[in-house]
Amino acid sequence: MRCDRLWTNARLATMRADLPGLGVVEVGAIGMRDGRIAFAGAAADAPDAADVIDCDGRWITPGLIDAHTHLVFAGDRIAEFELRQKGASYEEIARAGGGIASTVAATRAASEAALVRSALPRLDALIAEGVTTIEIKSGYGLTLTDEAKMLRAARALGDARPVAVRTTFLGAHALPSEFVGDADGYIALLCEQILPAIAAEGLADAVDAFCENIGFTPAQTERMFAAAAAHGLPVKLHAEQLSNQHGAALAARHGALSADHLEYLDEPGIAAMRDAGTVAMLLPGAFYFLRETKLPPVAALRAAGVPIALATDCNPGTSPLTSLLLTMNMGAVLFGLTTDECLLGVTRHAAQALGLSGSIGTIEVGKRCDLAIWDIERPSDLVGRMGLNPLHQRIWMGQTT
Amino acid sequence: MRCDRLWTNARLATMRADLPGLGVVEVGAIGMRDGRIAFAGAAADAPDAADVIDCDGRWITPGLIDAHTHLVFAGDRIAEFELRQKGASYEEIARAGGGIASTVAATRAASEAALVRSALPRLDALIAEGVTTIEIKSGYGLTLTDEAKMLRAARALGDARPVAVRTTFLGAHALPSEFVGDADGYIALLCEQILPAIAAEGLADAVDAFCENIGFTPAQTERMFAAAAAHGLPVKLHAEQLSNQHGAALAARHGALSADHLEYLDEPGIAAMRDAGTVAMLLPGAFYFLRETKLPPVAALRAAGVPIALATDCNPGTSPLTSLLLTMNMGAVLFGLTTDECLLGVTRHAAQALGLSGSIGTIEVGKRCDLAIWDIERPSDLVGRMGLNPLHQRIWMGQTT
Ligand SMILES: [Zn+2]
Ligand SMILES: [Zn+2]
Repeated sequence: MRCDRLWTNARLATMRADLPGLGVVEVGAIGMRDGRIAFAGAAADAPDAADVIDCDGRWITPGLIDAHTHLVFAGDRIAEFELRQKGASYEEIARAGGGIASTVAATRAASEAALVRSALPRLDALIAEGVTTIEIKSGYGLTLTDEAKMLRAARALGDARPVAVRTTFLGAHALPSEFVGDADGYIALLCEQILPAIAAEGLADAVDAFCENIGFTPAQTERMFAAAAAHGLPVKLHAEQLSNQHGAALAARHGALSADHLEYLDEPGIAAMRDAGTVAMLLPGAFYFLRETKLPPVAALRAAGVPIALATDCNPGTSPLTSLLLTMNMGAVLFGLTTDECLLGVTRHAAQALGLSGSIGTIEVGKRCDLAIWDIERPSDLVGRMGLNPLHQRIWMGQTT
Repeated sequence: MRCDRLWTNARLATMRADLPGLGVVEVGAIGMRDGRIAFAGAAADAPDAADVIDCDGRWITPGLIDAHTHLVFAGDRIAEFELRQKGASYEEIARAGGGIASTVAATRAASEAALVRSALPRLDALIAEGVTTIEIKSGYGLTLTDEAKMLRAARALGDARPVAVRTTFLGAHALPSEFVGDADGYIALLCEQILPAIAAEGLADAVDAFCENIGFTPAQTERMFAAAAAHGLPVKLHAEQLSNQHGAALAARHGALSADHLEYLDEPGIAAMRDAGTVAMLLPGAFYFLRETKLPPVAALRAAGVPIALATDCNPGTSPLTSLLLTMNMGAVLFGLTTDECLLGVTRHAAQALGLSGSIGTIEVGKRCDLAIWDIERPSDLVGRMGLNPLHQRIWMGQTT
């Protein structure tokens, strides 16, 4: 076997599930052919290649995966942030025109091109830290036209930059003002008209909802999930962020890829997730930014063997965060995750949360050759620091970008 | 009057003390001659210049100032961080060779060139966000040779990069193992031999100490301050971080530039700082990283009119932070500072904390032409986001760098 390119003399954190910890190979090499990993193992065993790159002992991880973002939006919520710093309540913020409604209004008013343009600096910040796959949700349009516009903008971001984009339809994010007092009517519109049209156009890779006392009920969530299943789309859920709605268990019953946030998750929810193979997607940026104090049940998730992922939750109102490195630091400092848990959380477990375990998230033969090469002494350097980006090079589909 | 260079069509946050808030000029211009600001005001009133730069309405602030760092050190404390994530106590960490003693051992073993080399990525990260002046402390050498080596490394960093470095002698940072049981003997060595030699070589711009139950007593601190005064050096103090030693009041009595940390500061301390003009230097990175819960008395400082500054406290053990933007975010989110307080805290008030109010920290005629030009809609965009660096250009001494 001959490779197109070989990275050698590297320390690999392969993240392989069949190896302990991070699956480290101390003197390793990675061979690439046609954009995929054709060899990963000891440098001594590496095949020939047309192009051989000496990594000088640098560490290589899989390309990072940000598996929960609301990256596409218009406007910002800085005025709301400032009001909150001055002690304003949510009600006062809403009265001042803040909250999610302000983002919906701005997003509806924006063109697809404007949405792409405003999201690019955020995407570039993530890419600069080694992100090679990103999930992007709709949910600020809340009409067919505007949800489709958001999802097209998300797909366009994947054309504009060397990064893989996975889209998620989150029509059930908030109740649009046109439907105040008629949430069931809005869910019916989503299930019967908007989702079918979105699915027909192939705009969504998954379906999400916001199950919360300020969002949608478990029954409404279940209707969304049934509609998703009818279109062959996997589901995930914003669950147990502000209260315990038993959303995680509901999501698990529907075979959800992930349940996300989870500060109020209980033991039955954990057991249901474990049995269903649902990933626990923790979002420490929102926890930090909202000064929450209720911690997700990390020890219980760990004990149950539920895979834990981490993501930025990048959004204008509750987590204006565009750094997966800082997300890992928050996971460690605020949630008490170990270094290994943080790193698996933005690689192998994040891939699982996107239903992409077969193609990304580890350094293994057959997977897409998405890599991050780092100027660090050890993997924990990626978790223990704040504000330093030691990325040496990012490889996407086998190409330096 | 003719300028060498003029930045026009800009929105200025001048930070001038005689203007409200951030001293905003909506359609402004800044003229530079010989590295200093020769004009700052309305664009309509701007003088001619050899070189005119249209800023397209971008915001300009003074160059940012990181006025409390331990940027020069060898080794790292990542192993300690991982132990702490696993629940290890400080005693267990110390027994495992962690803590400040490990940094002292590594720093003593490092050459001046190695110290410079290892600090450069940290300095570059700060510069990339618009920092034009940085304070760097000694305190990991604890012998004349090693303290002088650290301070020379700090000065060398200022030669290696386009940034102004202010050095602080922090010999009274920790008790070296050679002096266990004889803290007074170590203080005597510092006051009678080390500080005089450091001062004679012009290596220190100020003197600092760590007044704490795990550091030095108020009486020992006072001896350091007296020695500093004998050499004409201003003082500052690590005070009230972990307990109330009344260090801030002591510092204020000695006319300290700043008292730093201040979580346990009391009302008499605030009054003493107000009367002495001592800056309250808050360090949210350490508060975050150590998961502290005791907040500094921001409302009382505000009510007393004590100027509040913010800094990274960059150090390997308790604040491995190299982002002033993130520091401002933490100041807002964790300490409840307003946007204006955060921005004044890394400009005008930070300059005051370095005794440099006359030369940097605001956009005013006569000051050094240190500027940061930003791709933002409003100044609060610098505070309300996490991980996005909107720096367009940094100007140091009138030059684009
Ligand atoms: Zn979300
Ligand atoms: Zn310090």
